Amino acid sequence: MGPRAEEVDGLHIVREIPHVEIFTTERRWMGTSNGGGRPKVLTVPNINQSIVEVDYAVRGELAIRAEELRKQLEKSPGSLPFKQIVTCNIGNPQQLAQKPITFFRQVSALVDYPDLLEEKNESFTKQLFAEDAIERAHQLLKAMGGSSGAYSHSQGIPLIREHVAKFIEERDGFPSDPEDVFLTAGASPGVQLVLHTIMAHPKVGIMIPIPQYPLYTATISMYEGNAVSYFLDESAEWGLSVDELERSYREATRKGLDVRAMVVINPGNPTGGCLTQENMRGIIDFCHRNNMVLLADEVYQANVYEPKSLPFHSFKKTVKSMGPQYDDLELISFHSVSKGMVGECGRRGGYFECSGVDPEVKEMFYKVCSISLCPPVQGQVMVDMMVKPPKKGEPSYEVYKEEVEGVYESLKRRALKLADALNKLEGVTCNPAQGAMYLFPQIRLPQSAVQAAEKAGRKADEFYCLELLNATGVCVVPGSGFRQRDGTWHFRSTFLPPEKEMDAFISNIATFHSNFLKKYSS
Amino acid sequence: MGPRAEEVDGLHIVREIPHVEIFTTERRWMGTSNGGGRPKVLTVPNINQSIVEVDYAVRGELAIRAEELRKQLEKSPGSLPFKQIVTCNIGNPQQLAQKPITFFRQVSALVDYPDLLEEKNESFTKQLFAEDAIERAHQLLKAMGGSSGAYSHSQGIPLIREHVAKFIEERDGFPSDPEDVFLTAGASPGVQLVLHTIMAHPKVGIMIPIPQYPLYTATISMYEGNAVSYFLDESAEWGLSVDELERSYREATRKGLDVRAMVVINPGNPTGGCLTQENMRGIIDFCHRNNMVLLADEVYQANVYEPKSLPFHSFKKTVKSMGPQYDDLELISFHSVSKGMVGECGRRGGYFECSGVDPEVKEMFYKVCSISLCPPVQGQVMVDMMVKPPKKGEPSYEVYKEEVEGVYESLKRRALKLADALNKLEGVTCNPAQGAMYLFPQIRLPQSAVQAAEKAGRKADEFYCLELLNATGVCVVPGSGFRQRDGTWHFRSTFLPPEKEMDAFISNIATFHSNFLKKYSS
Repeated sequence: MGPRAEEVDGLHIVREIPHVEIFTTERRWMGTSNGGGRPKVLTVPNINQSIVEVDYAVRGELAIRAEELRKQLEKSPGSLPFKQIVTCNIGNPQQLAQKPITFFRQVSALVDYPDLLEEKNESFTKQLFAEDAIERAHQLLKAMGGSSGAYSHSQGIPLIREHVAKFIEERDGFPSDPEDVFLTAGASPGVQLVLHTIMAHPKVGIMIPIPQYPLYTATISMYEGNAVSYFLDESAEWGLSVDELERSYREATRKGLDVRAMVVINPGNPTGGCLTQENMRGIIDFCHRNNMVLLADEVYQANVYEPKSLPFHSFKKTVKSMGPQYDDLELISFHSVSKGMVGECGRRGGYFECSGVDPEVKEMFYKVCSISLCPPVQGQVMVDMMVKPPKKGEPSYEVYKEEVEGVYESLKRRALKLADALNKLEGVTCNPAQGAMYLFPQIRLPQSAVQAAEKAGRKADEFYCLELLNATGVCVVPGSGFRQRDGTWHFRSTFLPPEKEMDAFISNIATFHSNFLKKYSS
Repeated sequence: MGPRAEEVDGLHIVREIPHVEIFTTERRWMGTSNGGGRPKVLTVPNINQSIVEVDYAVRGELAIRAEELRKQLEKSPGSLPFKQIVTCNIGNPQQLAQKPITFFRQVSALVDYPDLLEEKNESFTKQLFAEDAIERAHQLLKAMGGSSGAYSHSQGIPLIREHVAKFIEERDGFPSDPEDVFLTAGASPGVQLVLHTIMAHPKVGIMIPIPQYPLYTATISMYEGNAVSYFLDESAEWGLSVDELERSYREATRKGLDVRAMVVINPGNPTGGCLTQENMRGIIDFCHRNNMVLLADEVYQANVYEPKSLPFHSFKKTVKSMGPQYDDLELISFHSVSKGMVGECGRRGGYFECSGVDPEVKEMFYKVCSISLCPPVQGQVMVDMMVKPPKKGEPSYEVYKEEVEGVYESLKRRALKLADALNKLEGVTCNPAQGAMYLFPQIRLPQSAVQAAEKAGRKADEFYCLELLNATGVCVVPGSGFRQRDGTWHFRSTFLPPEKEMDAFISNIATFHSNFLKKYSS
């Protein structure tokens, strides 16, 4: 294995410049099916070490083990101490039976099979689809030149970008330009594109929150940048202080890094916390003062449950509210159809909006998008639905409203219920679920559990989560996958199991936890 | 602008190691809307120069100009010497009115809106959808856990990968393992993933055909590898000789490059040529002998028109037919739903199959896929349709057969017609269209046209294509976008305009060409 991320002073994780002196690649001898064997051209030691080094826990070892157990249950249903795998490792609401929004799917189906819109089928179609869904499908088909099977504009279908800009304007009360909007295949490829573009040299630093969503460390590692950690304050509902930002920036700069951007995730993933507006203004001023780009991951903007954090305030709105002297801040904001009450993860739809970004740099973004031709049109359609849902008075409005409110209220109830239950467990503390789809409880583990983990070659939270999975079928992600303060252990769980299963889910965790503590208390 | 690709001896384009000595990034002073101004953090000179250097002509300047003209026509219809833009710059069949396959779209719509499958809607749905489409939708929904809105397995839905493996087995007569199949968002992200993984150090070389599809040069440049050119032989219907491969490999190795992989595009893009089986065996033996991975871009496998190249022979089949001593060749084959008679570009669906690849390297592929969560589910559904279309005796078979044959025969007629017409133009020669969706005619331009182009700061073929666009609305891509032998000029045109428009399309090109020659003959 190649060089790995290095821990500096136990806090700042700074990636070393990759070592690439070896120009004659090693060839590894491997047996093959024909009994002979020859060296493989590609082996882990001789491929791109920036890829080898990447850690990605959300779909990592625990998820793979969960899949194995799922297959085992399928084959021999009685062979495990539980009946099903509960995948709380990933914010994937429709996997856990969240119903899609009817209007969104009606439009999707009509765009997919436009024969339904033909006169000969009219009488049946009108029985099955709402009038405004039919109208929207016509509008979208026209905007895409007649077929969802054609490549679209690489930046996204112009009409849909107009709708995105209008949505942002109505949300924030400040102008938005469709030319600043890039439609993407979910938020992740947008984040990857922007980070890749920023990596001008091996000393570029990107400030990221700890704990963080591992997309960020993975992408920074893959593109050979340096993750510069700033710590969220668990004791202050995962808020952050400008002092901590200054400390992080100062130390990274002292180490010779060129800190060019800062990532903020709000509402937080994995923390579930929401930033106060004072916090947000502090971040903006900090970035502006230190000449940094601000990357605002706002994919959970519709998942805000805490009354004091409502309505959602975007970073764009906050910047624009701070007066013209902040207008030139380079801000890139990400959104997605995978979260919120939409929950359409499988479609891969999302967008980012650039604000204050040099037009020539936007041209570079466009060029890279064009190499992959276009974002998935079905994802783009879903972006259109998200930013322009049925309005009051339109035929689908009442059903839409009921569905959205139903999902929202249910998420909120489940968040509160799970947080309450976790806080009742011995040695577990959990901040309130202000937003997003996750809780990130801290678990205090007995010394003998930590030792047993060490013996098994695992971090203590990995060990805990693996035992939880094996005992209950509940799959969560160890805190170490998101990074955390040394000496603390956490896990991240979604609160997405269906409401009727929540009590059993919680009781399974509670029983496991108490057994685990008993087992390792001596 | 940063360092650019360097021409070595006029033939071999070898990218230099990027210069990254400057760790203090330059900041450029820019005016802003508030009248003040401050340096931008991100400017073209100080972002990732590997991205700045990328050339991508297919959706480059000409495509942007075409879009401007399209907008102008929309605003003031009579203001240009033509009525519409004919986008022959990109293989995008449904943009040019190719009808999607009915069965494929029926299944897509049902998967998108499963309410249609509920008992209460049955009577209407059965009027609108074929029985086997309903059955397939049920099967797919089950395979994806009930909803197309959930993230799938990062490697792709297992059932669809099984269908892909079965398709490959039936096509080739050799086994295929679903675990070796990765579903992707079209072929392009698969190619990018594999090339990125191979780039272990700055001296990695990847052999690519010239002319080539610019995805390859763009990706190699973006991931800081070195494109090693081998030339296809225009005088031999774009075939290739092993001598030329040996020459290219030898010279690159002599320059210190570690040549680790070879890209073959068959049927060819932009050439439209099909390799002979002798050629293919020569390539395989060459890669095997020199310890290289073979990357086979076979996205046009259903677009073979030349009887002597039928049925399509994949590289996988050819390798397996050559005996067990070639079994260990590392072969990665790419396919897509965007081409063939499917033509579903907008959905972003595709796959690659690994053969002979180290299992640990496949794990790395999986890890990178998992960072972007999953390929678009709607694209995966289309892969399922492509590899498992209706069979004889099934309700949708007759319609399916008629549609596919209709598209195929029409493509073939248009290919022959356009090639014929181009060969009749003065100074133009065009190889027969054996496959794919393109022709790549050579155009011999008068000296004064070359001079006029130089004066305008353009390559002669760019100049020609821009004049063609401005005069006729026909958008093609200059040969220089694909690279070509020095001193020759080409363009790539699809033959996708609808049949009823082909005569006008051809006559527009012919008139323009003759006027162009007249204008620059003196």
